[in-house]
Amino acid sequence: MSPADARLTRLQAPIAGDLERMRAIVLEQLSSSSAAVSDMTDHIGRFRGKQLRGSLVLLSGEATGNSTDEHHALGAIVEMIHLATLVHDDVLDGAMVRRRVACVNERWDNQVAVLLGDFLYARAFALSTELSSRLCSRLLAETTRRLCVGEIEQSAGRYDFELSQEQYEKIAGAKTASLYAAACELGARYPGGNHDVGAKMRAFGWEIGLAFQIIDDCLDVVGQEEVVGKSVGHDVEDGKVTLPVLWTYAGADDATRARIRDAYTLPGVEHRAARLREVCDLGPGVAYAERRAAELVEQATARLRGLAPGAARDALEGMGAFVLERRW
Amino acid sequence: MSPADARLTRLQAPIAGDLERMRAIVLEQLSSSSAAVSDMTDHIGRFRGKQLRGSLVLLSGEATGNSTDEHHALGAIVEMIHLATLVHDDVLDGAMVRRRVACVNERWDNQVAVLLGDFLYARAFALSTELSSRLCSRLLAETTRRLCVGEIEQSAGRYDFELSQEQYEKIAGAKTASLYAAACELGARYPGGNHDVGAKMRAFGWEIGLAFQIIDDCLDVVGQEEVVGKSVGHDVEDGKVTLPVLWTYAGADDATRARIRDAYTLPGVEHRAARLREVCDLGPGVAYAERRAAELVEQATARLRGLAPGAARDALEGMGAFVLERRW
Repeated sequence: MSPADARLTRLQAPIAGDLERMRAIVLEQLSSSSAAVSDMTDHIGRFRGKQLRGSLVLLSGEATGNSTDEHHALGAIVEMIHLATLVHDDVLDGAMVRRRVACVNERWDNQVAVLLGDFLYARAFALSTELSSRLCSRLLAETTRRLCVGEIEQSAGRYDFELSQEQYEKIAGAKTASLYAAACELGARYPGGNHDVGAKMRAFGWEIGLAFQIIDDCLDVVGQEEVVGKSVGHDVEDGKVTLPVLWTYAGADDATRARIRDAYTLPGVEHRAARLREVCDLGPGVAYAERRAAELVEQATARLRGLAPGAARDALEGMGAFVLERRW
Repeated sequence: MSPADARLTRLQAPIAGDLERMRAIVLEQLSSSSAAVSDMTDHIGRFRGKQLRGSLVLLSGEATGNSTDEHHALGAIVEMIHLATLVHDDVLDGAMVRRRVACVNERWDNQVAVLLGDFLYARAFALSTELSSRLCSRLLAETTRRLCVGEIEQSAGRYDFELSQEQYEKIAGAKTASLYAAACELGARYPGGNHDVGAKMRAFGWEIGLAFQIIDDCLDVVGQEEVVGKSVGHDVEDGKVTLPVLWTYAGADDATRARIRDAYTLPGVEHRAARLREVCDLGPGVAYAERRAAELVEQATARLRGLAPGAARDALEGMGAFVLERRW
């Protein structure tokens, strides 16, 4: 077990029982009287994943003294929305391997992956409408809209090597950090009220989520598939110019810039990420991106100071450290 | 203008102003501060369509004496969910032309069509969470789940020539009629209560929606693209064995059955629907399916008898007639 794995296990330990309850709700929601549907949801039920977003709901509730009986369902809803985005991302990316289980779109086809993602979104919203407060439905419908806008803007900005860091962070924030932010706000505020703490936890979630995405983008250009556990190099194949590449490109001479663009765009190039690593030194760009992620985690952690000391607050701090040291 | 067009114009006339308000809400919801998103939503804003589902919300409200200020938003939400399913269907079908406007997945690509559909669903749910009653969110989250299950089951049942009429209707009902049923129930019940009338209008919507789908399936095998205004013959390309074909297959001799299967499955066949029409006489199967649709419309219309006479009830009756006579 890597140090990052060990840290995650340790920081989720105080909520292990809650995570089990949350997971049971997810599995119950995935079940269907339709054999065709169950066949697929049984398959994706194996994508347990790190459950970071669900953990953030539970830990934010605990750390702010705001846990309710419905927090397990809140965590389950957030995890289901995340699952839906993964299933649709797999269609988008044509990704072949996710978490070492064949992707839905490989085992069945794109058609069914689109429908399964829609089914997961619908289940998540349906469950949210059964809760005692409407805050969850409201926050998550709005968040889902933002996730989509972020993905659409990312798609529109492909092959744009002149993207500013601010624009990059805005897009990465919308497509990833917004769900982390919603998870933390929901944990701290549900069923309602608690606005100041909610805003603080929302900002915490945003920064942690953005740091997560920056590290994800670094792993995609320099990570090894066997360690990351999902296909890597997709951003380059797909024309996504992420922070380590933007930084490298900005500081490169004209000849190197042309070679970087060629690695992304020249027809017939196989293994574009490998080619990119050959034509430029991504090391300093990755180091820069990692420093930016560390800075975000530091800002996030500072926001926790007002909370009562305890296991939940410690675990939230640990979440920041995990995001920085993870290699998968 | 065809008789069906004239009928639709006539039956929507009493709610023309309401439909304008409904449409304004849809367009407002499609707008986005993101240029990349607006660019796409401007495009799909041209898919005005027949607005049958939104009309059913408004007319069911009027006919049951249950119109509220929020009925325009209810209609807009139902239309947006329908739009989302169309956008995702286009990915599923690889359809090239919808309503004589290039489909989203042709003009951009599948990636963006998936995201745009997700965006539309999210907008629809977000708007529903702003209404005064939760009934809309609840009913539509559950309905969306059913739509997906219907589509998934249809996908799982492709190339199944032994499908019973009951199974066919269950699937067609889930993927199409459930949104018609929800539209009518919502119109009659929102913000809540009114259970008996709601159940009756729900059954009305289900039958009208199922009849609509049966006619749609007939148009796909025997309709002309220039009249229908969207690509036809897709069901055969896609392995969907619909009621007119099931009926024809069930009554055919072994040699004809083999030729029908070949029209669907033999590699290299172009224009499979045309081939299908060559190898068997679909006329009696289409006539059978049309009779079944007429029977459903008759059942539906009978349910309106308890409602107060008036323009809205007449328009609901006219909706049934329109569904049967439309050729697009």
